Amino acid sequence: MADIRHADPLLDPLFTTDAAADAFSPAARLQGMLDFEAALARAEASAGVIPAGAVPAIEAACRADLYDPHALGAEAALAGNTAIPLVRHLTAMVKAADEEASRFVHWGATSQDAMDSGLMLQLRRFLDGLDADLAELADGLAALADRHRATPMVARTWLQHALPTTFGLKAAGWLDALGRDRQRLAAARGRLALQFGGAAGTLAALGEAGPAVAEALARDLALPLPALPWHASRDRIAEPAAALGILAGTLGTLGRDIALMMQMEVGEAFEPAVPGRGGSSTMPHKRNPVSCAVLLSCAIRAPALVGGLLAAQVQEHERGLGGWHAEWQALPDLCRLVAGAARHARETVAGLTVDAERMRANLDLTRGLILAEAVAMALGERMGRLAAHSRIADASRRAAEAARPLRDVLAEDAEVVRALGMDGLDRLFDPLRYTGSAAHFIDRVLDNHRQTQGRQS
Amino acid sequence: MADIRHADPLLDPLFTTDAAADAFSPAARLQGMLDFEAALARAEASAGVIPAGAVPAIEAACRADLYDPHALGAEAALAGNTAIPLVRHLTAMVKAADEEASRFVHWGATSQDAMDSGLMLQLRRFLDGLDADLAELADGLAALADRHRATPMVARTWLQHALPTTFGLKAAGWLDALGRDRQRLAAARGRLALQFGGAAGTLAALGEAGPAVAEALARDLALPLPALPWHASRDRIAEPAAALGILAGTLGTLGRDIALMMQMEVGEAFEPAVPGRGGSSTMPHKRNPVSCAVLLSCAIRAPALVGGLLAAQVQEHERGLGGWHAEWQALPDLCRLVAGAARHARETVAGLTVDAERMRANLDLTRGLILAEAVAMALGERMGRLAAHSRIADASRRAAEAARPLRDVLAEDAEVVRALGMDGLDRLFDPLRYTGSAAHFIDRVLDNHRQTQGRQS
Amino acid sequence: MADIRHADPLLDPLFTTDAAADAFSPAARLQGMLDFEAALARAEASAGVIPAGAVPAIEAACRADLYDPHALGAEAALAGNTAIPLVRHLTAMVKAADEEASRFVHWGATSQDAMDSGLMLQLRRFLDGLDADLAELADGLAALADRHRATPMVARTWLQHALPTTFGLKAAGWLDALGRDRQRLAAARGRLALQFGGAAGTLAALGEAGPAVAEALARDLALPLPALPWHASRDRIAEPAAALGILAGTLGTLGRDIALMMQMEVGEAFEPAVPGRGGSSTMPHKRNPVSCAVLLSCAIRAPALVGGLLAAQVQEHERGLGGWHAEWQALPDLCRLVAGAARHARETVAGLTVDAERMRANLDLTRGLILAEAVAMALGERMGRLAAHSRIADASRRAAEAARPLRDVLAEDAEVVRALGMDGLDRLFDPLRYTGSAAHFIDRVLDNHRQTQGRQS
Amino acid sequence: MADIRHADPLLDPLFTTDAAADAFSPAARLQGMLDFEAALARAEASAGVIPAGAVPAIEAACRADLYDPHALGAEAALAGNTAIPLVRHLTAMVKAADEEASRFVHWGATSQDAMDSGLMLQLRRFLDGLDADLAELADGLAALADRHRATPMVARTWLQHALPTTFGLKAAGWLDALGRDRQRLAAARGRLALQFGGAAGTLAALGEAGPAVAEALARDLALPLPALPWHASRDRIAEPAAALGILAGTLGTLGRDIALMMQMEVGEAFEPAVPGRGGSSTMPHKRNPVSCAVLLSCAIRAPALVGGLLAAQVQEHERGLGGWHAEWQALPDLCRLVAGAARHARETVAGLTVDAERMRANLDLTRGLILAEAVAMALGERMGRLAAHSRIADASRRAAEAARPLRDVLAEDAEVVRALGMDGLDRLFDPLRYTGSAAHFIDRVLDNHRQTQGRQS
Repeated sequence: MADIRHADPLLDPLFTTDAAADAFSPAARLQGMLDFEAALARAEASAGVIPAGAVPAIEAACRADLYDPHALGAEAALAGNTAIPLVRHLTAMVKAADEEASRFVHWGATSQDAMDSGLMLQLRRFLDGLDADLAELADGLAALADRHRATPMVARTWLQHALPTTFGLKAAGWLDALGRDRQRLAAARGRLALQFGGAAGTLAALGEAGPAVAEALARDLALPLPALPWHASRDRIAEPAAALGILAGTLGTLGRDIALMMQMEVGEAFEPAVPGRGGSSTMPHKRNPVSCAVLLSCAIRAPALVGGLLAAQVQEHERGLGGWHAEWQALPDLCRLVAGAARHARETVAGLTVDAERMRANLDLTRGLILAEAVAMALGERMGRLAAHSRIADASRRAAEAARPLRDVLAEDAEVVRALGMDGLDRLFDPLRYTGSAAHFIDRVLDNHRQTQGRQS
Repeated sequence: MADIRHADPLLDPLFTTDAAADAFSPAARLQGMLDFEAALARAEASAGVIPAGAVPAIEAACRADLYDPHALGAEAALAGNTAIPLVRHLTAMVKAADEEASRFVHWGATSQDAMDSGLMLQLRRFLDGLDADLAELADGLAALADRHRATPMVARTWLQHALPTTFGLKAAGWLDALGRDRQRLAAARGRLALQFGGAAGTLAALGEAGPAVAEALARDLALPLPALPWHASRDRIAEPAAALGILAGTLGTLGRDIALMMQMEVGEAFEPAVPGRGGSSTMPHKRNPVSCAVLLSCAIRAPALVGGLLAAQVQEHERGLGGWHAEWQALPDLCRLVAGAARHARETVAGLTVDAERMRANLDLTRGLILAEAVAMALGERMGRLAAHSRIADASRRAAEAARPLRDVLAEDAEVVRALGMDGLDRLFDPLRYTGSAAHFIDRVLDNHRQTQGRQS
Repeated sequence: MADIRHADPLLDPLFTTDAAADAFSPAARLQGMLDFEAALARAEASAGVIPAGAVPAIEAACRADLYDPHALGAEAALAGNTAIPLVRHLTAMVKAADEEASRFVHWGATSQDAMDSGLMLQLRRFLDGLDADLAELADGLAALADRHRATPMVARTWLQHALPTTFGLKAAGWLDALGRDRQRLAAARGRLALQFGGAAGTLAALGEAGPAVAEALARDLALPLPALPWHASRDRIAEPAAALGILAGTLGTLGRDIALMMQMEVGEAFEPAVPGRGGSSTMPHKRNPVSCAVLLSCAIRAPALVGGLLAAQVQEHERGLGGWHAEWQALPDLCRLVAGAARHARETVAGLTVDAERMRANLDLTRGLILAEAVAMALGERMGRLAAHSRIADASRRAAEAARPLRDVLAEDAEVVRALGMDGLDRLFDPLRYTGSAAHFIDRVLDNHRQTQGRQS
Repeated sequence: MADIRHADPLLDPLFTTDAAADAFSPAARLQGMLDFEAALARAEASAGVIPAGAVPAIEAACRADLYDPHALGAEAALAGNTAIPLVRHLTAMVKAADEEASRFVHWGATSQDAMDSGLMLQLRRFLDGLDADLAELADGLAALADRHRATPMVARTWLQHALPTTFGLKAAGWLDALGRDRQRLAAARGRLALQFGGAAGTLAALGEAGPAVAEALARDLALPLPALPWHASRDRIAEPAAALGILAGTLGTLGRDIALMMQMEVGEAFEPAVPGRGGSSTMPHKRNPVSCAVLLSCAIRAPALVGGLLAAQVQEHERGLGGWHAEWQALPDLCRLVAGAARHARETVAGLTVDAERMRANLDLTRGLILAEAVAMALGERMGRLAAHSRIADASRRAAEAARPLRDVLAEDAEVVRALGMDGLDRLFDPLRYTGSAAHFIDRVLDNHRQTQGRQS
């Protein structure tokens, strides 16, 4: 079969990554539960709860490829979750090899123990893979910030020209936010924890041995041991979801900015050109911002998925009804989407085409109006902020009406010339001289980045 | 292969229906677009825009099973949508049979024409299937309402016992809401419309023939012809989504009520018992409300999916960036989920086990307190609402504290006995006498239902 | 007091309208409930349930300005809803004037009857006011569509230049979507209905008289009489919410498009210039798109509010716990926001500055590439779509690389000149000749608009 | 004036706290901005950017009560944000006292600097107040967990009886989740940061002095100094929002559980009885779970508000259009709601009435079926899990059908008696012996709690 990786073969290759698809495939879901079952047998044997002789047969049967997802799915449709039929099939599989061992499958555990712990393993693998992509993205942004630290461009606020800035500062802003996203994801990863409580969260079936088994199990799976089972405390699900949703916003901001810069009328930066990418069936000249579309689409969908997962938190009593079910597909969907967006961001940043000349040219589109503040500040030191402000506002209006450079209009104002000098006026209209602390800010962000990457490697 | 119907073989059998899975499978998505392409060729031939001789070869190639979804998906990941590679492959397929005909594939259309019109065909099929399920659900609810029109039970408000009602009235309430849901879905179905505008929504490539082709195409596909193409007006997507989201709320309410009635301590109604259904791996006696879990899970997830689709509405200029992409998986996800909930509701209602004795017994749990209003109203006619209210409140408090029947406490109040008589007092404590207009309301709802079903069949 | 209309005096003047603020003010909420109470007294008197003599005193006390919202709010904080203390104060007020009458205040009704019916009255008033604004907006859009039916501009898809269109067609697209929005709002308005069921939805306290009182009450309030009380069927709340959310998307699309056209580099259309509007404290030249900001902000917030209201639908048994509470502020918030967006849209469209010259100039930015399709279609008639497509794609690439007009590059291709003739080639590069059915579409939309407005007036 | 604290005097007293209302009142919003302006003047004077003599007059005018929110709101409706008119009025106020000083108001800053930094101050105050409430709630939960560590009750999964647990363990579960919520809120509080970048985020107007002023300003306001301004990086807003949304889920879970326990048929725990609280206008006996309603309502609304704030993250270029606006009311709304829920949770837990006898009685409702697992585990050690499981399942079915105690049915099974002994069987049916590691888990949670509280105080 060509590719059974993707649940939606037509669209998943666009919207997600192979790694994320693998981390949340049916096989991965089964393997997560089976890894729990195998580790449980080992932990219980080590604590003397079940005979050591039962372990090999159980371990041998804990391979996802031994089970048919379609058959399990059909049974799960009646049972209400996947673990019930899986444990049934697993037990039968073990029994075929070692009837005695089969008595100890899933000993003292409940469905949700297997499903939640399996999910933790899936999430850990997913988050590690995601962070690798984000680290590359961060390096790419750092390179952009460094390379373009002196590439002037217009800063835009409310989608209007404001003042000069540099493209490096814009990239540093994206990078800085990404750094916080990675911190939040790391915190969420740190709160992934073993789920193990048995049918009522008391481990009653294990008698005195509960804590010892739980500890051994946590060690085996390398999952933190929580203070108590958390079947109905879904903040452990909501937190990584929220961190992914916030990351989606960071990535969406990058996507929006690049899409806006790619506009024909702006033309300052472009997604990398790749054969077959972004073509239009009817407009041969067109290069569509495909990655930006994916980034924006993720930024639209992710908040809603997060909202749904937050809403699912209210789970009744010891294990809830409906809320838990609501997580099963929504969280993987969210993970897949955000991973896809991270990949597109990484690729886009790595291959971004920057047109520094066009950036410079766009700075002049207002004929100097974007430097009105520079002049106002300089003038303000002589005549006060408000007075200078209103004088410059007048001149700006006249310049705009007459389509003349603001510098020329101001040069006719004797009081302005007296205050600033003609040379001073000219210097004030050099955008390169009016980027303030941009370089300082870039340095701070790059320092942080270097420290982070150092810590990680 | 056992079952390739479900994108998620482990969970879709629980959460959706075969019909919904089929309506939104990769094959169905491709067939929707291919139905558009075939109809386009016919319409353009009938309008003299392309040669009639090109039609058969195009029609012959418009079968989804001729194309490999994985290959298309891989190309779509670069192209940015599915229609671009599909049209490429379709053209090659036609060309292999009839080179001349291949020149006229997709003539004058744009990717979004094929994708949106295909989606309209999928949605129409889906909504028709859904309404058939809802009609059965409505019949089931009508039967419940009728059968239990005189089955008294306690009305609960704020999860507290309030007054007597009948189970028939509760069922009638569900049915009445469902009737409005079906009206909304029918309205949304009525606003599904052909998408056909070409690359810029002007049909420029067709010259003068645009309107004639559009009209023929709409007729061929039996889709309403809109006043103009609606590539960036996504209310046509948001409306069915919203209607489905509202339906999810109606179904979730049903699920919550039944789950609450299924509680051990309440025990008034139960999901149908089916072998293999709702079993617990560790608690052999337990019958889990699996369908209720699905109904509630859908009611949690659907609002978020709707919110995401509403947010996706802001699509730029003639065709947007990201918003459109955000719809592609979210709308099918929503459809699949709501269809699954409708199926579970239908099955649950059809096989609902009602314990009328337990309902009657629960009415007495407050020792008559829930009839305090009946007494207060009767007494109010003598001494005014507020005075009666506070007198009854006092008696109720005393009855509750002493765990005595309210009737007995009131029988000791001379003024009450003078006002109502001892017989009158006893009659007031018969819950069957205090269900007011319940039967009248049931009749109104059943009348509406009969008219609706008559109209539909 | 300067202005007590706005709950948030700093921000509501920006985000809402006076009419919407008034419709959902504390006073309006109280008056809605009091209108219900007065009408209830009249209906019950007319049905002989309470003495006719009780009505005048009750009516006289049903004026919101007689009550202190802060005192009511403090009591509601304990009671759990507003109607409980209001009925208490109302009864006391009536009692002061006519003790006998006070016995019949709120007779047979429950808090939610008053609150929901009052809300229906508020919503009706709100929706009528909103539709008046939308009708003006529609007229403004119709005027734009008509005036600019032959104003060519570039169509943009994926934020890239596509083909020529006209500004009139863009305006017609907004208008067409708005027409459907108004239909949905009208449908939702039509499903607003009286709420009247008493404590358990059975009207038990009214004995036999329930239906007669309900009918008289519905008539008095001019609210449709529902088949049965709908305390726990919140689709009647969710539906107008969803319709408003969809409208928010339509308005947000308008806002996004105008904001994009207002970009310095695009400069095709502008929000009206108003003194004091959109000024920047530091950039005297800047005119911020304030109304677009409001439109976009509403399009971001409204979907989430709708999602919350859909999620609130699951209300338990006869009257729910928490879900109902979740509506009380969220629905008015949504109404206020969407009304504000509608006002901004109306004002923006009414005063929109359109720069047709700039639109024309932007059409040429691709040096003819956006007419590649026109040439490809013409050429396709000779050599087949795909062959023509790839020939034009080649030429387009060369033209783009050399920054030469596509026409000039094609004029060097003998086969192209042979197929189209030099004159034919020139005609193909006139954008005005390549707007296809734009005028036809505009006419259809304007026809629909005229019929709608005719129906309304 | 009675109370101008609440934006919505009818409902805010129910849904929020005075402290939260104060933290986000119009006055607090103004004061946040004015605190920024005063500190800015001090920082700039200390860096020699403005004359030290300008500071006193500016400081003197930075008191919110000097300004009329209604007038500012009316101007903000045109200007597009609140800071523009506030700076204008502030400058005029300073000018009236010291014309020279007025030249240096807001020097080098932009509107968003004042608004975002002001918001940070508001959020810090809010979060500190909230944590105080949460600390009290945590203490209340710890007391419950400790007091009821040996109070047996039934564990419920899927709303069905499962096994015995203790009420202490349930309280410990709530407490454990709350601990993580507080960690997340503390992390979010730690990432609140100064906003100071001037019109384009470069501090260009300050020339070389930018970094020094920023540092002094951060120190003055005791806000962390970020690496660079973050006008368009809204993860700093989204993070506290998400943490609040997750907390809302934790609180909602508490509310749902208590509401379910308060059901007449369950009767295990009750909200504190307070005069005037939860009364029903028509049902004098009823005590409505008012606090649970608020907790659930918050858990419904908060996820949607969070979703909206996540969606608002996509803000264009150096300062965005619409996304920023979308935060202004949504974030305060969210804060107010969650604070209200925290208060209700605190009060409910502090005054919770626990009926341990009823808990014990409910344990017996299944006639021993909830101890089937205990027997199955003991039996499983002899005959294997699956065999024991199916034997017990059989017996359970027979016991349920005959409405007999499971113990009695099992006592008739010779093989069971042989395996377990009659005494062993009896011991297995003592629920107190089957709460496993519950006490161990409680200890772990209480240890964590003590450490946390120790750290805080």
